[in-house]
Order: sequence, then C-alpha cells, then structure tokens
Amino acid sequence: MSDSIRDLTGEIRGFRDARDWQQFHNPKELAVAITAEAGELLQHFVWQSAEQSETRARERLPEIADEIADVAILLFEMADNLGLDLGATMREKLARNELRYPVAKSRGSNRKYNEL
Amino acid sequence: MSDSIRDLTGEIRGFRDARDWQQFHNPKELAVAITAEAGELLQHFVWQSAEQSETRARERLPEIADEIADVAILLFEMADNLGLDLGATMREKLARNELRYPVAKSRGSNRKYNEL
Amino acid sequence: MSDSIRDLTGEIRGFRDARDWQQFHNPKELAVAITAEAGELLQHFVWQSAEQSETRARERLPEIADEIADVAILLFEMADNLGLDLGATMREKLARNELRYPVAKSRGSNRKYNEL
Amino acid sequence: MSDSIRDLTGEIRGFRDARDWQQFHNPKELAVAITAEAGELLQHFVWQSAEQSETRARERLPEIADEIADVAILLFEMADNLGLDLGATMREKLARNELRYPVAKSRGSNRKYNEL
Repeated sequence: MSDSIRDLTGEIRGFRDARDWQQFHNPKELAVAITAEAGELLQHFVWQSAEQSETRARERLPEIADEIADVAILLFEMADNLGLDLGATMREKLARNELRYPVAKSRGSNRKYNEL
Repeated sequence: MSDSIRDLTGEIRGFRDARDWQQFHNPKELAVAITAEAGELLQHFVWQSAEQSETRARERLPEIADEIADVAILLFEMADNLGLDLGATMREKLARNELRYPVAKSRGSNRKYNEL
Repeated sequence: MSDSIRDLTGEIRGFRDARDWQQFHNPKELAVAITAEAGELLQHFVWQSAEQSETRARERLPEIADEIADVAILLFEMADNLGLDLGATMREKLARNELRYPVAKSRGSNRKYNEL
Repeated sequence: MSDSIRDLTGEIRGFRDARDWQQFHNPKELAVAITAEAGELLQHFVWQSAEQSETRARERLPEIADEIADVAILLFEMADNLGLDLGATMREKLARNELRYPVAKSRGSNRKYNEL
C-alpha cells in the first residue's frame, strides 16, 4: 500500500466529498477538531509520570493509535484545503529547526532555541 | 522529493537523534507538545466566524503552515515511537469511519455517528 | 453558601490533601490537566455552528457544567499553589483589557487589540 | 475587595456588554477561547520535567498568572451565560469526586476512579 501523503490525502478527500462535508470543514473548524482530538490523546496521560506513560501507551495502544489517526486525518485535510504540500511544509520546518537548534548547542538540552 | 510518511519519519528521527532528544520524547511529552501546538494553530481563529477564518487562513498562511508542520512532525514521531505504521493506522480509521458514517445517512449532516 | 474564591479554594485544598495528591500537582501537571479538561469541554461543540452550540449547551447542560467545574477546580488550585490571589489576578487582567480594548474602538468588533 | 465569584462575574459581564461582545460569545466560541488560552498556559511547560516546571512557574509568574486569569475570566462568563452558579457547580463536582475517590482507596495514588 502506498505510504504517500498525497495518496492518503486523496482518500481523505474522497471520504469527505462522498458525504458532502466540505461545507463544515472551514479552517477554523478543522483547527477546532484537531485541538479537540489532540486533547483526547492527551487525556490518556493526565497525572501519569513520564515513565508511567510508556507503560500506558503500550497498554492502550489501539485507543492511542485511534486518536493519532484522528489528528493526522484532520491535519492532512487542513493542509490540503489550504493548498499546502504537507511533506514540503514539514521539510521546511525541519530545515528552520536545524538553524534554530544547532547540534553543538542543543545536544542533550531541552531548552527552547531562544534560550540556548 | 519523496512524499512518503516513512521517509519523512526517518528525517525527523535523524533530526532528533543528532540532538540526543529521545530522552525527552516519551509518549506523554509528545502528547503534551502536540496539544500545545494544536492550541497555537487554534489561536489564529479565536473569535473569528467560519467565513472570516477563510480570509484569515489566506492572510496568515506562512504562520499557519508552520503550526501545521509542528503538529505533523510531532505526530509522525509519536506514531513511529509507538511502532505504528501511520499510513496504515489512518486507513484503518477511515475504514471504521466508512462503517460509522454510511453515505446514505451522513450525507450533508454534521451529526456524530451515535446520533445519526 | 459562601461564593468566595478563597473559601472554595480551601475546600479544594482539603480534598487534595486528604488524598495526599499534592505530590502529583506540580505546575506542569496542572496545566496539562486544565488543557485536557478544556478539550473535553470543546469536544461537545466540534462541527457545531455557533447557533447550534446554543441548543447543544442547553441539551447537555449537566455534562457541560461538569467540564466547566473540572477546569475551574484545577485552575483555582493552580492559582493557589503559585501563591496568586485569583480574584485580584483576574481584576488586573480586566484592567489591562480596559486599556487594550477602549470601548470607542472595540465596540461591536471581534478584532484583537493589536489589530484595532 | 470582594472575592466573590458573583461579583467578579458581574464585572466581566460589564466589561463585555460595554463592548457589545455578547454576540461573539456563544457557548462554542467560549469553549474555543478557553481551550486556546489553556494551550497558552501549557506552552510554558512543554519539554519541561515536573521538577523544572516549579522553577519555570516562579520565573514566569506574571505571564503564567496572565494565562490563568484569561482562562478564569472566560470560564466565569461561560458559566454565567449558561445560567450556572459556578461555586455550587464546583461543590457538586467535589462532592461527586468524594464518592469516586474514597480517601482509603485513593490516598497517594494517581489512578483514575474507574481503575481504583
């Protein structure tokens, strides 16, 4: 099966258009849905320590995979609706992060780039 | 340039490992970061109507693309860390949604599957 | 019954300390829990139009009241843990917003203060 | 100065109505704004350990107080718009949590009530 963002985005578009749902999928609403689904993902880890979260993720893998898929589907659609090439957009951000976080300064550190 | 989720995930992994950041990237922390970045995306649309959000998205496309990339990068990494094939996980969710939202019942409706 | 923030905060503190839960309630974790509960509140309104949300809020009032209470309880505790007088903090913010949003300029407008 | 939720809510209502902003403040929009502000609060703690978050909260107290006030102001207004007595709603939730989390079973544990 193809692993391409464009192919997956086409399948998401097909699912949406068969249901005539584009009318509900304006940029704001997609951002709202993405945030709400991210909140569901976070819900699995509230009050858990970092260590406990590893066990939790294994125990609840199907539910957590489900939330990750929900966020990803909405994100792919939002990028597509805005005319963005998601893969290229991600690579541009990685390139910017390479500049913001030079390996020599950021290695092993959890500081933000403006605090390095 | 490749548009494959696996290739992009490999690049994200390379970026992270060059900085020895996996120590900070437990499942909880990735869920926290994804939710915080989704919140930044949402921030662009607070108080805007659905219609206004279309204009806003065009006016702020570079900033919004940036937030979408941030969420996507973290999401690809989280799926990878949990041993998930993100594309397959998304297709499984789409298949489940096909059953939950039959075209005949859900066309043109914004109801949830348990309210159809 | 008293309607004072301080009295309610005392009751929240009593509930927490009887369970020896302060060990889990560091600032980060409270921010995580607040965001996750806000996400549950938002969940009720995903895909709903502004108008539909009025009906939805009436139909689901007990569940929505429950989410509002969850956010409020955590917020009161977080303010208290940080040594803040929440009422005074809110009044300071309202005073700042009075300056940012002069009535003459902001009346009937949903623009942010830096766009007025 | 009064520390009563009702008095503060009255001040928030006055601020809003002087600007004729109730038209924008439907239940959905308030939930969106609350979640976006909660995300800003969370942003301060991303990648920080629980321990680091204590230091961070002290160092950034004014900014964090500001985010807490933003969430609280919106939450007080939302409760008010829905005809809720926020203090009573919080006490009802605390009472329910007393039943869900009996001291004997939940003391020193970060488990959810359905896992105790």
